[in-house]
Amino acid sequence: MSFIESLNAAWIKNNSLLCVGLDPDPAKFPAHLKSRPEAIFEFCARIVDATADLVCCFKPQIAYFAAQRAENQLEALIAHIHATHPGIPVILDAKRGDIGSTAEQYAVEIFERYQADAITVNPYMGRDSVEPYLAYPDKGVILLCRTSNPGGSDLQFLNVGMADQPEKLYERVARLVAREWNANGQCALVVGATFPGEIARVREIVGDLPLLVPGIGAQGGDVQATVQAGRTASGCGLMINSSRAILYAGIADDTETGFADAARRVALETRDTINRYR
Amino acid sequence: MSFIESLNAAWIKNNSLLCVGLDPDPAKFPAHLKSRPEAIFEFCARIVDATADLVCCFKPQIAYFAAQRAENQLEALIAHIHATHPGIPVILDAKRGDIGSTAEQYAVEIFERYQADAITVNPYMGRDSVEPYLAYPDKGVILLCRTSNPGGSDLQFLNVGMADQPEKLYERVARLVAREWNANGQCALVVGATFPGEIARVREIVGDLPLLVPGIGAQGGDVQATVQAGRTASGCGLMINSSRAILYAGIADDTETGFADAARRVALETRDTINRYR
Repeated sequence: MSFIESLNAAWIKNNSLLCVGLDPDPAKFPAHLKSRPEAIFEFCARIVDATADLVCCFKPQIAYFAAQRAENQLEALIAHIHATHPGIPVILDAKRGDIGSTAEQYAVEIFERYQADAITVNPYMGRDSVEPYLAYPDKGVILLCRTSNPGGSDLQFLNVGMADQPEKLYERVARLVAREWNANGQCALVVGATFPGEIARVREIVGDLPLLVPGIGAQGGDVQATVQAGRTASGCGLMINSSRAILYAGIADDTETGFADAARRVALETRDTINRYR
Repeated sequence: MSFIESLNAAWIKNNSLLCVGLDPDPAKFPAHLKSRPEAIFEFCARIVDATADLVCCFKPQIAYFAAQRAENQLEALIAHIHATHPGIPVILDAKRGDIGSTAEQYAVEIFERYQADAITVNPYMGRDSVEPYLAYPDKGVILLCRTSNPGGSDLQFLNVGMADQPEKLYERVARLVAREWNANGQCALVVGATFPGEIARVREIVGDLPLLVPGIGAQGGDVQATVQAGRTASGCGLMINSSRAILYAGIADDTETGFADAARRVALETRDTINRYR
């Protein structure tokens, strides 16, 4: 099954638009886990097992693994998700972007080594920097469009249109991806929850293209505004990411299962809050 | 010594603007190396040892290591360069770009784990996505500006200026970096050799800021036009990258030292060709 097919199936099966972001920071792990050699894998796997029936996808952020020399634990984690929760797609959040010959190497890294179902990619280098990922027909390619951080406006909000027909850079990216790069139906876009008006604008441009929306929870985006701006006619079309608010909900609870139970509670609440506005 | 100081010193000491890019592709290694467990390290280290007196910096491309599960060999390679060729800075070509909390993790990866002296960064997410790298005062931060690939024009060539004062996106990036992000003198820019007119335009905007110029050799950029467009008044200011043309110059020679000798010959020729036009 392709990434897009799995995502569609998971939206329905789990009745969920929630994406749980896996950004493991060992400093925030429960004390009983900290000393274990595979603490990163154990922490993430238990979060995954506690939330897999509540999500439409998981999104490990590769930087958190790479900073800890934990590539092997990332491989093991993705293998664990595929084996234990088949049908839930895994997006590897890596925001790669490079010339074709290098992008081919990144595609090997992300899709063959890590067996991710989709990758996030930076569009700044243009179409041929994206093609090596699209060459894997079952994989998803999620392009940065409008990001949720303060500096996102530095470039993305610049006007690249004509005087009589203004168009912001992020709108051009949305248009390029929806009308040109998405020829095989593999693409999606990242649009931050901190800008609901811009989610609505992107939705207008791209039709039913899936949107990955970071920025609710720790980053302060509003769930109701996000869902109402971004949902498709069928009430789907969104992967609404929450990372820290779920992962570290039980940070103060050092019992064996406390952190995973707390994560499940917050994931359930978040899924249901999202569903209230679909 | 900071990245910028090391670079300035290496330009003079080695009388060279040449950057050797380390993009190790095991399929192209000499047969006698292919079966060795640390073939990637050995290949790169011997290229490094054969060319270190001819370059102003080395630039490993992380994708080639990550695709082969060779992170440990990349660590060993950078440690080897620092130990054996002190004073030659190492740029880790990773083109990272993410929100602040994630960029902090990438900075740990690149500067602490790998001990690189500089990183390449994608500017699409704006200033706060770059600050975590700038927080390491001795490190260099090299922003993508105008890339050498065909799709580079898709976004970078869009007009973001006014009708009466046109400005392309890559020009805006050059201006932002030179006038704002470079407050502590840590920045440089990537400008592809395939567009000498645009190298000249960037040089006009950024004064003496160092430019990393990929695209000569395999990518077809012209050395004379590149040097004349990009050199500073003192005949420096450039890191002109060549990867494949040097690494695989001796691909057909399977003697123990043939590939490194051939790499040295081509590196020497390339350095001297560059110097002819400084």
